[in-house]
Amino acid sequence: MRTGIWLVGARGSVATTVLAGAAAIRADGAPPTGCVAELPDFAGAALPELSDLVFGGHDVVDVSLGKRAEHLVRAGVLPASTAQLVAGDLEAADAELRLADPDAGNTGPQAAEIERLVDDLSGFRARHELGPVVVINVASTEPPCSPQPAHRNLAALETALCGRSPVLPPSSLYAYAAFQAGCAFVDFTPSTGARLPALHELSLRTGQPYAGRDGKTGQTLLRSVLAPMFAQRGLNVLAWSGTNLLGGGDGATLAGQGAAASKNAAKRRVLERNLAGRVDGEVHIDYVPALGDWKTAWDHVLFEGFLGARMSLQLTWQGCDSALAAPLVLDLARFTAAACRAGAAGPVPELAFFFKDPVGDVPHDLATQYAMLRDWVPR
Amino acid sequence: MRTGIWLVGARGSVATTVLAGAAAIRADGAPPTGCVAELPDFAGAALPELSDLVFGGHDVVDVSLGKRAEHLVRAGVLPASTAQLVAGDLEAADAELRLADPDAGNTGPQAAEIERLVDDLSGFRARHELGPVVVINVASTEPPCSPQPAHRNLAALETALCGRSPVLPPSSLYAYAAFQAGCAFVDFTPSTGARLPALHELSLRTGQPYAGRDGKTGQTLLRSVLAPMFAQRGLNVLAWSGTNLLGGGDGATLAGQGAAASKNAAKRRVLERNLAGRVDGEVHIDYVPALGDWKTAWDHVLFEGFLGARMSLQLTWQGCDSALAAPLVLDLARFTAAACRAGAAGPVPELAFFFKDPVGDVPHDLATQYAMLRDWVPR
Amino acid sequence: MRTGIWLVGARGSVATTVLAGAAAIRADGAPPTGCVAELPDFAGAALPELSDLVFGGHDVVDVSLGKRAEHLVRAGVLPASTAQLVAGDLEAADAELRLADPDAGNTGPQAAEIERLVDDLSGFRARHELGPVVVINVASTEPPCSPQPAHRNLAALETALCGRSPVLPPSSLYAYAAFQAGCAFVDFTPSTGARLPALHELSLRTGQPYAGRDGKTGQTLLRSVLAPMFAQRGLNVLAWSGTNLLGGGDGATLAGQGAAASKNAAKRRVLERNLAGRVDGEVHIDYVPALGDWKTAWDHVLFEGFLGARMSLQLTWQGCDSALAAPLVLDLARFTAAACRAGAAGPVPELAFFFKDPVGDVPHDLATQYAMLRDWVPR
Amino acid sequence: MRTGIWLVGARGSVATTVLAGAAAIRADGAPPTGCVAELPDFAGAALPELSDLVFGGHDVVDVSLGKRAEHLVRAGVLPASTAQLVAGDLEAADAELRLADPDAGNTGPQAAEIERLVDDLSGFRARHELGPVVVINVASTEPPCSPQPAHRNLAALETALCGRSPVLPPSSLYAYAAFQAGCAFVDFTPSTGARLPALHELSLRTGQPYAGRDGKTGQTLLRSVLAPMFAQRGLNVLAWSGTNLLGGGDGATLAGQGAAASKNAAKRRVLERNLAGRVDGEVHIDYVPALGDWKTAWDHVLFEGFLGARMSLQLTWQGCDSALAAPLVLDLARFTAAACRAGAAGPVPELAFFFKDPVGDVPHDLATQYAMLRDWVPR
Repeated sequence: MRTGIWLVGARGSVATTVLAGAAAIRADGAPPTGCVAELPDFAGAALPELSDLVFGGHDVVDVSLGKRAEHLVRAGVLPASTAQLVAGDLEAADAELRLADPDAGNTGPQAAEIERLVDDLSGFRARHELGPVVVINVASTEPPCSPQPAHRNLAALETALCGRSPVLPPSSLYAYAAFQAGCAFVDFTPSTGARLPALHELSLRTGQPYAGRDGKTGQTLLRSVLAPMFAQRGLNVLAWSGTNLLGGGDGATLAGQGAAASKNAAKRRVLERNLAGRVDGEVHIDYVPALGDWKTAWDHVLFEGFLGARMSLQLTWQGCDSALAAPLVLDLARFTAAACRAGAAGPVPELAFFFKDPVGDVPHDLATQYAMLRDWVPR
Repeated sequence: MRTGIWLVGARGSVATTVLAGAAAIRADGAPPTGCVAELPDFAGAALPELSDLVFGGHDVVDVSLGKRAEHLVRAGVLPASTAQLVAGDLEAADAELRLADPDAGNTGPQAAEIERLVDDLSGFRARHELGPVVVINVASTEPPCSPQPAHRNLAALETALCGRSPVLPPSSLYAYAAFQAGCAFVDFTPSTGARLPALHELSLRTGQPYAGRDGKTGQTLLRSVLAPMFAQRGLNVLAWSGTNLLGGGDGATLAGQGAAASKNAAKRRVLERNLAGRVDGEVHIDYVPALGDWKTAWDHVLFEGFLGARMSLQLTWQGCDSALAAPLVLDLARFTAAACRAGAAGPVPELAFFFKDPVGDVPHDLATQYAMLRDWVPR
Repeated sequence: MRTGIWLVGARGSVATTVLAGAAAIRADGAPPTGCVAELPDFAGAALPELSDLVFGGHDVVDVSLGKRAEHLVRAGVLPASTAQLVAGDLEAADAELRLADPDAGNTGPQAAEIERLVDDLSGFRARHELGPVVVINVASTEPPCSPQPAHRNLAALETALCGRSPVLPPSSLYAYAAFQAGCAFVDFTPSTGARLPALHELSLRTGQPYAGRDGKTGQTLLRSVLAPMFAQRGLNVLAWSGTNLLGGGDGATLAGQGAAASKNAAKRRVLERNLAGRVDGEVHIDYVPALGDWKTAWDHVLFEGFLGARMSLQLTWQGCDSALAAPLVLDLARFTAAACRAGAAGPVPELAFFFKDPVGDVPHDLATQYAMLRDWVPR
Repeated sequence: MRTGIWLVGARGSVATTVLAGAAAIRADGAPPTGCVAELPDFAGAALPELSDLVFGGHDVVDVSLGKRAEHLVRAGVLPASTAQLVAGDLEAADAELRLADPDAGNTGPQAAEIERLVDDLSGFRARHELGPVVVINVASTEPPCSPQPAHRNLAALETALCGRSPVLPPSSLYAYAAFQAGCAFVDFTPSTGARLPALHELSLRTGQPYAGRDGKTGQTLLRSVLAPMFAQRGLNVLAWSGTNLLGGGDGATLAGQGAAASKNAAKRRVLERNLAGRVDGEVHIDYVPALGDWKTAWDHVLFEGFLGARMSLQLTWQGCDSALAAPLVLDLARFTAAACRAGAAGPVPELAFFFKDPVGDVPHDLATQYAMLRDWVPR
C-alpha cells in the first residue's frame, strides 16, 4: 500500500524541487543527499520507500511544473540534466495537482471550502488506493493570525466555520481538512497550521498526527548546534545578531515585518532555550531579489569567557533554500507516514529535529533532537 | 584534604591565567565563566572546590608571575583590576614554582632527571598534605617524537632510561615522573606525554589515571559540533579548509611544520570520524606576532545538498587562547582529581569532551562527549 | 599664535580620546598613527603643529576627563599607561571645559543661548591669545530636524531666533555661535550643524569656513574605495547590504530609527554616486551594548560579471570608533585652521576625504578625495 | 582592417569563456559586463570594436570548444542558453585553433619551434587580412624559470636557440614568436613570457608592444584598493594574511609550491608598494577540486590605529575565475591593439591596471592605474 503526499503550494520552488528530486532519485539512482531517512542510523526503520510515495497537491497558480523546473535550472537549483530526465514525471505530476482559489476561504462559510479540500484529498486517496496520506504545507508564509475565541475549542470552531466571516487562515483550513479526511498534517512554514487548540482537539478526535513548524534549514539549524556548545562550555553569550539576505518568493514575503515576526520569534527561542535566558541581538530578514533561490545568513556571536575576555564567532551560511528544504520535506513525509502507521495521534514531538519551532516542550539542541528521532522511529 | 595541581610550563600565558583566575574567583567571587565543572549539570558532583586547589609547577624560565601578569594585562587577557587584586597570590604562587633545566633530559641518563621531578612532586604533596595531585602539561608544543623500541613496554623503557642517550621527550618524562610519584597526568598540548605503550603500562601499574591530548578550544571545538550537524542532515561535505592566525609563543612554535603536524592530524581526525570518511581541505597555522595572545581561525566548508547543490559555510572564530584554555585546565584538574579519588587508572575516555585528540576509541561529537562526561562524573 | 579647538561634546568618548591622544603624542613622542596630516604627502603643508593646539569645549555632563579616561581604559580604547601618562593634562583640560545646559535652546529665545556660546568662545580665544579657532561637533547624533521657513535665509533666521519657540537644533546653534564668534565650524556627526541656507549665508558674511558632515571611519570608508573598484572594472553591483553592530552612546542613539536615517542616507549616497545609479540593499544599525566602544560592520556585495556570472564580496570591519575618529578630529582641526589662515569662507569641499556626506558637489571615491586634499593644502 | 587575437591555451576555461562571450555579445547584444573598454570613460577611444576581433590560437589538447563550453555550463560559468546561442561560432572558432605539441620546445633546437609558431601567426594574419595581431597567453601557469646567461641579450639568445638544449620556457617561446611575426604579446599569467632582457630587446627591435603580467582578478584587485586606503588614512597595517581556495586546472597547478611562488611574490609586492614597507602575513593557495571554476579568497588585515588600538578587516571574495578574467582578456586585446596602431614598442606601463605584477616602475594603487589608462588611451 503506497503513501500519499499532498503538497500545499505544490508549484512553488520547494515543492517543484521535491517532485523533481524524488523522480530523479527513482530514475537514475542518484544518492539521496540531504535525506535523513537514508542515513545508516535509519537503515532498519519502518519507513515508506521513496519509490512508494505518490504526490498530489494544491496551488493558487497553474503554471506547469515543467516551466517551474526550467526556472529552477536557470536559478542554479536544478541541474539541466535532471530537469530533462524528469520532464515526463513532472508532466504526470501536473495531472495530480489541483488549482486552489486564493479567495476561497474569504467568501462564504469556510466550512464549504473545507469540504472541497476534503473531497480533493479523499479523491486522491481513493484514486491511488493509498495507505497513509500526509498533507504538507510548503506555501508562502502567512502573516501571524489574530487569536479568536473560536480557536479555543472544536465545538466553537465548528460553529464559526459555518458563519459568514472567515475564522481560520488558509494553512489552518488545510490542517482541518487533512484531519477531517483522515490525513496527517505537517507545517513546513511558520504559518498557523494545526497550532490552535481547536485543531489539536480535532487531530486527537480523528486520530491523526501532526508536526511542525517551520523547517530548520540554515541559520536556526546552526544555532541549534552552536548555542549548546557555548552552554556546555560555560561561555557567556552576550549578543547573537543575525542578518538574512534572501531572494525568491519567500524573501519578498518575509521582508514584510508581519510575516517575519513569527520566524524571528522562533530563531530567538532556539537561543533562549539553549542558553537559559534572554540574549541580546536583532535578526534582520532582507529581501534581495537578485539572490533568487539562494540565501546568505550572517551571524555574529559576542561572548565572554574566563575573567571577562570578550571573544566572537562569525558565520556565513550560503545555501539554496529549495535544495535545503526539499529532502526534509521528503523525510517528514516518510517519518509522519510511519507515525500514522504506528497509530500516533496529536503532535509528534520526536520530529523536533526538523523544525525551528517544534510542537511541545522538547529539547532545542540538535544532537538531542537527533537522538530522539533515531530512538523513536518504528523498526 | 586538598588537591594539588602541578603545572608544567607554570609561567606561560595559560598557566599564569589559570593561577590569576583561580585566585580572582576566590578573592572576589567573580562568576567562573568558562568553567564546565561549575555548570548546573555538575551541581552534585564529587569534585574538589576551586578553593581546595593548591598550585605548584615547573618552568624553564624564572620571570616572576607578577611580571607575566603585567604582560597579560597589556595583551588584553587579564583586566588590570584582576592583576592588582591577585598580586599577592601570584607572589605566593611564585614560591611553589621550581626552575626546570631545559637540557636536563639530554645530558646523562634520563632516569636521574625523572628522580629529580619525582622529588619535586613528592615534596609538593608532603608540604601541603595533599590528597590527589594532578600534573598538567601546558608547556610549549614539542615536535613529534620518533618511535623507539623502548617505547613499547615498560621493562625496555626502564633499561633505556638508565642509558646515556635520551629516550623520552620532556612531556613524557613528566608523565613518567607523575605516575612514579603517584600523581595523575593530563596533557593539554599535542605533545607525546603519556601516549606511549610503556607509559600506559606504568599508569596501570601505579594505579594512576591519565588524560589528553591537546585542549579543544577553538577551531576543533567548532568542528566537533558542526561536522555532526552535516552528518545528521545527510549533507555531503566536499572540502573543509582552515586557516589559523596566532601570535604568542604557541604561534611561533606551531608555525614550524613539525610541531603543527600532530595538531593538524587531530583537527583532521575530528572531521573524518564525524563525517565517516576522508575530507578534502588543508589546515594552515600562520604565526602573526602582532596578534599576541589572540587567535583568529577561519574555516570554509564546501558541501553538497539535494541534487548536488553546492553550498558553503564560513566561520571566523576570534578568541583569546589563554582565556579559552585556562578554565578547561581548572576543569581537568578537578575532574581528574575526582577520577583519582574514584580509583581510576589508565586513560579516562570520559574526558574526551576537553580534547582535540582524546585517548581511546571515543565518540568525536561534542554533544555525546558532554553526555559521557555528565553521566560519568562521580556524585 | 596658537590654534584653538573647541569640542562640542567634550567629555564624550571621541573627545576624551582626542584630548588624551594629543597629550600622549606630545608627552612621549609616540607615532601619531591615524593622523593624515602627519603623512609624508603633507610634509611641507602649512598646518598648525599638534603641539600648537589648545583645547576647550562644552558638554552637558560634568564627569571629569580622568574618570572618562578610566572608562576608556576598561573598554580597551586607551592603554592604561597612556591614561596614567596624561592624567595631569586631562586635569588641566577639565579647567577649559564648560558645562552646557541641555535644555538651554528650548526655553526662552535661542538668541540668548547663542550669545552665551559666543561669550564662551570669545573668552577662550582671548584667554589663550589664539589665532584661528575651530569648533568641532562630536556630540551625540541628533534626530533629523524638520525644515522651517526661517532656515531659508539669515534675515528670517535672526528674527526667529528672538522668538519664543526654538528654531534651530543644538548643533546648528553651535554653528551659528561659531560663525558669530569668528570661528570655523566642523560637523563630525550626521546632525544638521551648518547645513542650512541661513547658516551658509552667515558663514560667508562672517568669512568663516565650515566642513562636514559625519566622519567616515568604517563601513562608508570601505564603500568609498570598493564601489569605485566595481565601477572601474565594469562589474554590475546588484545589491549592497550592510549590518552595523555598535555599543556605546552612539549605538544607543543610532538604534533609534530617526537618528539613523540621515546616516543611512549618506551610506547609500556613497554607493549611488560611485555606481551611477540605484543599488539594492538595506543598512541596519543594531545597538549591542556589550560591544562598548567597538563596532563590527558586515557588508555583503552581490555583483554580476561577464555573461551574468553571480559573484560576491563580504567584508567584516571590526574597529574602535573612538580610535578611528579621534585622529580625524585632530586632522580636521588642523586642515580647517589652515583654511582659516588662507582666508577661506563657506564650505571647504576639499575636506570631503573625511566625511560620509561631504558638503558640495564633490567626488565620492576616496582616491580622488585624497588627491583633492593633497593638492589643495596650503604649503 | 580587423584585429587578430591569438590565444595561447585557446581551449582552456578562460579562453573558451572569451570566445563564447565575444560571440554572445555580438549575437544578442547582451551588455558587455566586466569590459572596461565599454565604460563611458572610454567612449571616444580609438579601440577596435568587439565585432572587429578575429580569434585564433594554440592549445596542447584538442577537445572541441563545444565540449569545453558544455563543461562550463555544468560548472555554472556559462548559462546554458549562451552555450546554445554560440554553438555555431564555437565550431567556426575550432577551425582557427592549432594543436600545439607540448614537447615541441624540448626536443631539437627551439629556433625550429619558434619558426613553426611564426608560420601559424603569419598564416592567421594573411588568411584574415588582419591589421594588428595580439598574442595573449592564457595557458597554465609555468613554474618559475631559472636564469640563464642567454636571457641577458638578444644576440646570445639567438645563438642559444639554435643549440640542442632548451633555453626558453614555453611562454617565452610564444613571446619571441609574436615579436618575430610582428605581433604584440600580453601575458595574462605569472609565467615568464616577455620578461627577459633579450625579449625586451627583441620587442624594441621589431617595434612591438608587450604587457603583463598576471591578470588582477580577485584578491590582488582588492588589495590594490584597500592597501592605499590604509596608507591614506595613516593606519598601520601589522599583518595581511590570505588564503585562496581554488579548483580547476589553475588550482591544481598553483597548489604546487613552485608555480605559486611568483604569484605570491606579486600579491606581496602590491602590499609593500602601497604600504611603503614590509608587511607580515602569509598567502596560501589551496587546491579544492570540488570548487571547479570558482574560487574563494579570504583576507585578514590586522591594523593599528590611534594610540595603538588593534583593529581588523576581513574579506571573502567568491568569484568565478573565468568570468573575471575573460572580459579583461578582451580589454587587453583591444587596448594593446590600440597601442600597436599608435606605434608603441616595448612595455606598455599604462596597462598596469590589469595586472598583479605590471611591467615597469608604475603606481600600484588601482585608482591611479585607472587614471593612467584613461589618460593614455588614444582617442
